[in-house]
Amino acid sequence: MIDATRYQAIDGGGVSSARGFKAAGVHAGFKKKSTGPDLALIMADGPVACAGVFTKNVFCAAPVILCREHLDGRSCGFAQAILMNSGNANASTGQPGVDLVRKVAEHTASLLGCAPKEVLAASTGVIGNRLPFDPFEENLGSIIAQASVDGGHDAACAIMTTDTHAKEHAVSYESTDPDFEGTTFTVGGMVKGSGMIMPDMATMLAALTTDAPLSPELALVALQEAVNVSFNKVTIDSDTSTNDSCFLMASGKAAGAHGSLPTFGQGSLAFEEFRGALKAVCVNLARQIAADGEGATRLVTVNVAGAADSADADAAARAVANSPLVKTAIFGHDANWGRITMALGKSGARFSPDDVSIRLMGMPVFAAGAPVPFDEAEALRRFEAPEVTIDVDLGAGNAATTLWTCDLTHEYITINGDYRT
Amino acid sequence: MIDATRYQAIDGGGVSSARGFKAAGVHAGFKKKSTGPDLALIMADGPVACAGVFTKNVFCAAPVILCREHLDGRSCGFAQAILMNSGNANASTGQPGVDLVRKVAEHTASLLGCAPKEVLAASTGVIGNRLPFDPFEENLGSIIAQASVDGGHDAACAIMTTDTHAKEHAVSYESTDPDFEGTTFTVGGMVKGSGMIMPDMATMLAALTTDAPLSPELALVALQEAVNVSFNKVTIDSDTSTNDSCFLMASGKAAGAHGSLPTFGQGSLAFEEFRGALKAVCVNLARQIAADGEGATRLVTVNVAGAADSADADAAARAVANSPLVKTAIFGHDANWGRITMALGKSGARFSPDDVSIRLMGMPVFAAGAPVPFDEAEALRRFEAPEVTIDVDLGAGNAATTLWTCDLTHEYITINGDYRT
Repeated sequence: MIDATRYQAIDGGGVSSARGFKAAGVHAGFKKKSTGPDLALIMADGPVACAGVFTKNVFCAAPVILCREHLDGRSCGFAQAILMNSGNANASTGQPGVDLVRKVAEHTASLLGCAPKEVLAASTGVIGNRLPFDPFEENLGSIIAQASVDGGHDAACAIMTTDTHAKEHAVSYESTDPDFEGTTFTVGGMVKGSGMIMPDMATMLAALTTDAPLSPELALVALQEAVNVSFNKVTIDSDTSTNDSCFLMASGKAAGAHGSLPTFGQGSLAFEEFRGALKAVCVNLARQIAADGEGATRLVTVNVAGAADSADADAAARAVANSPLVKTAIFGHDANWGRITMALGKSGARFSPDDVSIRLMGMPVFAAGAPVPFDEAEALRRFEAPEVTIDVDLGAGNAATTLWTCDLTHEYITINGDYRT
Repeated sequence: MIDATRYQAIDGGGVSSARGFKAAGVHAGFKKKSTGPDLALIMADGPVACAGVFTKNVFCAAPVILCREHLDGRSCGFAQAILMNSGNANASTGQPGVDLVRKVAEHTASLLGCAPKEVLAASTGVIGNRLPFDPFEENLGSIIAQASVDGGHDAACAIMTTDTHAKEHAVSYESTDPDFEGTTFTVGGMVKGSGMIMPDMATMLAALTTDAPLSPELALVALQEAVNVSFNKVTIDSDTSTNDSCFLMASGKAAGAHGSLPTFGQGSLAFEEFRGALKAVCVNLARQIAADGEGATRLVTVNVAGAADSADADAAARAVANSPLVKTAIFGHDANWGRITMALGKSGARFSPDDVSIRLMGMPVFAAGAPVPFDEAEALRRFEAPEVTIDVDLGAGNAATTLWTCDLTHEYITINGDYRT
């Protein structure tokens, strides 16, 4: 295990913090109610190693179909640029939607001087509306010209939908691997929330970059591992998006290198360090998503331990995190732990009620199959904190997991009762 | 198939409409915020055939544990009385909770002069609070004395939690089976909603009665069949209660009989007629639950056809009916059908997007993998109706199903953010 404290957060860091990347965000006109940025670009100087994981939703969006093609169905390869828009998901739009995003990639490639398959794309917004080409045609030249090492924040703003703030994070660390002695690596990224969020072995829109030297295959190994313990452990509303896409680009241009860096070996210390850094960035971004879930007033962390296996741990934690009754109780600052036992009981996880114990915000409320008296006034005080933690021990084994979600509030209803029209 | 129109609804009918049953509802003090009835009794003149189906939640409530014991683990047997309370679920209360309900059954049996195992019980309300014995001790004598053939409505009121009205229905029909020529049978029942509702091969609290002559085993066959197409097809909030219980009692005392009626044979026309009547009552009650879901403004009917098998049909319909984004869109009168494709796509049902067609309130909105233009003004007009219908054809086979749910509204948040305290 790598000591997590060695990964230093970069103040104001994001998707363009790693060496070898530029980014930009501009207003192209996809969002009708806003004049803010809605087109984002992340680009390298030339084709670099890239990996992507995508939604498992059968109704996947047109850009997801294109990215799978461009990565040859292997989920990894080489790419120079990722183009992302908000305001329109280009999903359930049929063949015209796929034709459109292909045309956008070709146009971008001609401007960058790379192959069309080295351009990837992602979209977020309303499902079922045709995505127009004009805003791309009118803005691609200028967004490429504007792209800079300081453009990460504008890019993060451009992929926001109902997010209340941009979500970025980056860390740097000095390698202790003898082969990379003195080399400082950087991993950074951006992500958008904040509704239709229950990633299914993939994630919502996220772009991650690093200046570490990775092969496409190792980039994919690290990305899948990090996504499984971060974005795939977030649920806002149990709804899995048609557009979930998460990319990792690796330039290999870290500082301190004597000439060109050799690619990390699979079992190397350097790769292990990198995996730790990527996980740290992804978990930070995942928690940002949950904390800014649509209408959220509280980040909710659900820890399940003592499960018979990891599938049971996940099922139990997901049942609690997706329960509208648990989530409305937290919104109401009601320590109604009976709804947690209800959710565990319906989850399908194997356990005996008599072996279960539950702590709510650190307070024991249920043990050995029976209620534990607790101080209601103290519970109300603890509900004032920005994060509510639920700890469950199923007493059935050694598997554990952590999920992040948020409370369910009036504002969620307001946002989603009036989103499209 | 039996023609459904031959089952005549009984005006004001309910759980005491069938001959041989009495019911009552009184205020015993389980509900703290209300002086309305919170204790219900349904009783026959002596032990009668009875079947019960119960929640699959691992954290099942104490009365569910007792009922399973009293029915010898076979889910059917003989019973004389069912006692139901609201205001306290007696769930997650450990062994003391089981001891309490056993004591209640024994006390009731001593007053009725039957065996303790001929008394069944059900509870609904807050999970995790100890159920007191005093309100039972003080009220059992009077509720038995009050029980009458007119008491069904009081009983239905006594099991309400956040329901806005009592839910009852009864039908009668004249048998055309030569063995029962001229005999009029009645089937009636009552049910409570309206939150923590996604029955899992069982149902929420429901009591059904009939004067048809059934063996315990045939009562169970008919009950399981009816529950699977009615209560098990309702979801309010995807949360499966710890207390789901549904009972059917059969007195065999139908009018028109020349002396004592022979018990229905399994393959008889009389039994087929009865099964139709029981389904009609259960579907009516199930739709009442959905229409009165917590905070609901609209009943939502989800019809899925063209599924590869019935499991796929159910998975697809359930994904749509449980989607917070679909349900908030309906609340907002937003014909945002893209959320329906999203839900279908995450459901796990097998289909090709190009084969799917969707109608919303009768209007085609999606066909052959692409959007179908529709009149937004007409959609807004149709949203004024009390029932919103979603018809999906997956184009993957011949299986079909119907589910009932409701929209997700501010009132749901208000109710559940402030329920226990």
